[in-house]
Amino acid sequence: MSRPAPVDVRRARVWLSRVVEPGDLRLHRLLAERGPVAAAELVREGWAPEPLAALAGPRRCVDRVDADLAETARLGARLVTPEDEEWPDAALHAMEVAAARELADVAPPVVLWVLGAARLDDVLERAVSVVGSRTATPYGLRVAAELAFGVAGRGWTVVSGGAYGVDGAAHRGALGAAGQTVAVLAGGLRRLYPAGHVALLRRIADTGLVVSEVPPDAAPHRHRFLLRNRLIAAFGAGTVVVEAGARSGTSSTDRWARELGRSTMAVPGPVTSAESVGTHRLIRDGARLVGSAAEVLEEVGAIGADLAPVPAGHEQPLDRLEPVVRRVLDGLPAAGQASVERISMDAGVGVVDVLRALPVLELSGLVRAEQGGWSLMR
Amino acid sequence: MSRPAPVDVRRARVWLSRVVEPGDLRLHRLLAERGPVAAAELVREGWAPEPLAALAGPRRCVDRVDADLAETARLGARLVTPEDEEWPDAALHAMEVAAARELADVAPPVVLWVLGAARLDDVLERAVSVVGSRTATPYGLRVAAELAFGVAGRGWTVVSGGAYGVDGAAHRGALGAAGQTVAVLAGGLRRLYPAGHVALLRRIADTGLVVSEVPPDAAPHRHRFLLRNRLIAAFGAGTVVVEAGARSGTSSTDRWARELGRSTMAVPGPVTSAESVGTHRLIRDGARLVGSAAEVLEEVGAIGADLAPVPAGHEQPLDRLEPVVRRVLDGLPAAGQASVERISMDAGVGVVDVLRALPVLELSGLVRAEQGGWSLMR
Repeated sequence: MSRPAPVDVRRARVWLSRVVEPGDLRLHRLLAERGPVAAAELVREGWAPEPLAALAGPRRCVDRVDADLAETARLGARLVTPEDEEWPDAALHAMEVAAARELADVAPPVVLWVLGAARLDDVLERAVSVVGSRTATPYGLRVAAELAFGVAGRGWTVVSGGAYGVDGAAHRGALGAAGQTVAVLAGGLRRLYPAGHVALLRRIADTGLVVSEVPPDAAPHRHRFLLRNRLIAAFGAGTVVVEAGARSGTSSTDRWARELGRSTMAVPGPVTSAESVGTHRLIRDGARLVGSAAEVLEEVGAIGADLAPVPAGHEQPLDRLEPVVRRVLDGLPAAGQASVERISMDAGVGVVDVLRALPVLELSGLVRAEQGGWSLMR
Repeated sequence: MSRPAPVDVRRARVWLSRVVEPGDLRLHRLLAERGPVAAAELVREGWAPEPLAALAGPRRCVDRVDADLAETARLGARLVTPEDEEWPDAALHAMEVAAARELADVAPPVVLWVLGAARLDDVLERAVSVVGSRTATPYGLRVAAELAFGVAGRGWTVVSGGAYGVDGAAHRGALGAAGQTVAVLAGGLRRLYPAGHVALLRRIADTGLVVSEVPPDAAPHRHRFLLRNRLIAAFGAGTVVVEAGARSGTSSTDRWARELGRSTMAVPGPVTSAESVGTHRLIRDGARLVGSAAEVLEEVGAIGADLAPVPAGHEQPLDRLEPVVRRVLDGLPAAGQASVERISMDAGVGVVDVLRALPVLELSGLVRAEQGGWSLMR
């Protein structure tokens, strides 16, 4: 089935991904108009439209395509381009439309580097993004892991950013359920980041995927995190924010999700917790409050198929009583017995209704008829 | 200024309050048509419309008015009737309208017993209801106390039910701010309930008010708690639920608040806490998430005056109006006034929805009731 892109197209995309930073709308337009090979040539020769040429700047003179391809092979990774069948068209469709109509100042990736055996488009077919604070509390870590466990256990992929805190807990929760999980990195695949998560990211690649849109040696610069967040938002049918401080970068993922028409969800926490300030603000701004995997899947899933059960307490026998019968029951004395007239008086229910209600209560084992009246069963 | 009701009117209301349970719509209608004295006479003689006569049942033969009045005096309490200037017309307006148009199966109180020196209508002019679980967690107790402290400290009265848990914490928080607080009881004033809160309720009466709509010796039956909740909902411009389990009776207060066009708010908590299951469900169902007194007052307060200092608040007050309420607002003429029917026509909204929306808009300071209809505020 595989129909890889011609070598020159792939080389052009690899070259462009190093020369122009991710998400550039001008490059996206040039690619759409001229195709990758011609677009790369125009940028290389300095003939691209002025701002783009300026953007590429001195990088125009660099050609590390051979090195990048060699590095990719060495890492056991692969390139995925829009010309490949594995390209996640469905997941990137909204971003593609937004870019074409200039609805958002951002463009889909030029190419993706992927580590892991699974097919990217398959893995993203049913996916939820779970993100949050790097400095999550034990509560946030627990909820992130439980949500991811539940989502992955129901056959949905968990997408996150591989970071410390909520991201790591979400990936681990999905792995714990033997489910699929995808880590989208801000830097290149040679620099698995953060350092403390190298083992985790390798485990993710064993069964799921680690994905990046920058060359293997690219550093995880701050602006790359913000652009990376647009991919996390795009890859999930919805984005769940588990914990976020007042100034969290997580809010950029939520904003991308909104711009891309994705469901935005947030997990509440104690109002006394600084790490829940951000999620509460998201809920006040319209994100859906979720507290369980079932509620997450109800939000993103096929309606009906994944409907969350409404949390309900155990039904008490008393709940099923008609209001008037319930009032008659309340009218019986705590101790001793009462006549029908007395009950009628105390309950504020007419005698006829009392006489109708008492047998119902007797059948339910709640009251007992005695010589001189009625009494409550113990 | 005091213009007490004639003695026979007061006696009729006291008698009726014992004979018929609170909130009875048929009695309310009879009172509106015939006045208290004639209504009491009809019920006493068994000439009242059939269901009402049956409801009163054997209680018709009881006359404890003298004893009730003596007891009231002995307790240092007083009667407040709709004929008194102190009657909280504004707070009960929505319920009055709902009863008159049969929009809700419930009626305003026939009479109120009040303990405490403050004027009831004054105290309720700016009030927020704070309710929640009797089995609140330390987190819930802390948040209830802090919210009430902040609300009361800004000159708003805190209304609650005097119960253990959230109610008690809310009352104490208001007292701690030297603010006003009102406890609405399900039973009579002689039976301060629950027993462990007798000292608290007496402290509330020292500076605020303890209120009941049943005679001093009435027991706090279960159905009276549900009806009592309609008064708590009516007395506040909005209702805040702090903690609530899956089967909490608190949800009835929230339901009343919605029916009466009041703001409904809920405080989130850990999704791992059983006591926050109810508040999360309320938020998912449309209640506003709040975490601070400022956010509560932003929701109920005069627009602008009490706006919460939220970091991301670009929202306009009008944005928060439900679409149907917004349409009703749009249906009012730019100048002059319009009848409910006229507004219904111009807004393309049914009369019932117009009647529900107008009190909301009135509370928001956007419209004003006048002699012949409703008009926009400038």
